[in-house]
Amino acid sequence: MKAVARITVLILAVVLVAGGAYAQFAKPEDAIKYRKSVMVLIVTHFKRMGAMVQGKVDYDKPAFTANAEVVKRMATLPWEASLTPGSDEGDTTQSAAVFSKKDEFLETAATFEAETAKLAATSMDGDFEAIKAQFGVVAQSCKACHNAFRK
Amino acid sequence: MKAVARITVLILAVVLVAGGAYAQFAKPEDAIKYRKSVMVLIVTHFKRMGAMVQGKVDYDKPAFTANAEVVKRMATLPWEASLTPGSDEGDTTQSAAVFSKKDEFLETAATFEAETAKLAATSMDGDFEAIKAQFGVVAQSCKACHNAFRK
Repeated sequence: MKAVARITVLILAVVLVAGGAYAQFAKPEDAIKYRKSVMVLIVTHFKRMGAMVQGKVDYDKPAFTANAEVVKRMATLPWEASLTPGSDEGDTTQSAAVFSKKDEFLETAATFEAETAKLAATSMDGDFEAIKAQFGVVAQSCKACHNAFRK
Repeated sequence: MKAVARITVLILAVVLVAGGAYAQFAKPEDAIKYRKSVMVLIVTHFKRMGAMVQGKVDYDKPAFTANAEVVKRMATLPWEASLTPGSDEGDTTQSAAVFSKKDEFLETAATFEAETAKLAATSMDGDFEAIKAQFGVVAQSCKACHNAFRK
């Protein structure tokens, strides 16, 4: 995992630098709004998986896989917005640590990307025990980023 | 296109009905928040393509394709939220016509899905004239839905 995370950090850094040229947010508020929107989608689809993992809702493979796919895709999107200067101020919970500990932030972001991608892949096999385990890993990676980079 | 739209409406109806069993929004407000989040992402990435189409920013194939891919994916997401009962009231611009003209709504939604998918496919060929034309078609399909189903 560590090695995968390192490679993903590199890719992420390249994508963000390349992306910066054409896709900056005009205002920090735009970046905040965008980031929050991504998070709303992640939380919604993550909770739907959580209901199955916790046995509140019957496990449904196509539904689980669809939710995992959305979360995987969404996991690639918020970082450029996170790195928008000034977007740690105003109506946001993002802390200034994103900028002061940028490398650590990118590594945490890359771990989240890698783990959500793994959940999407695992969900396609349909082994529910493996799915539950990987769901837990993703939950941990949400928490790790929030603990370190949220106010 | 008409035939494609008709098939997509069918698929969409099946997905929405099947999805309804496991993925309803607990409250209309949740559906509204989700829908708005999807729209923020669509608008952000659509505008990035628009800047290239309008020549404000140099055409960049990988960037255009990435934006088109996000819009294509996002285009499949908002409909279940749109059809959540009561979500035409409160902090929303969605009109009650979504419910009173549900078939027409689903057809408009399916057209949007089909046209954004076509834009994503066209963007991969890199023929900028074809891309610009299809971008215009997508813009029209945004407008068609907004005209008919926004307050």
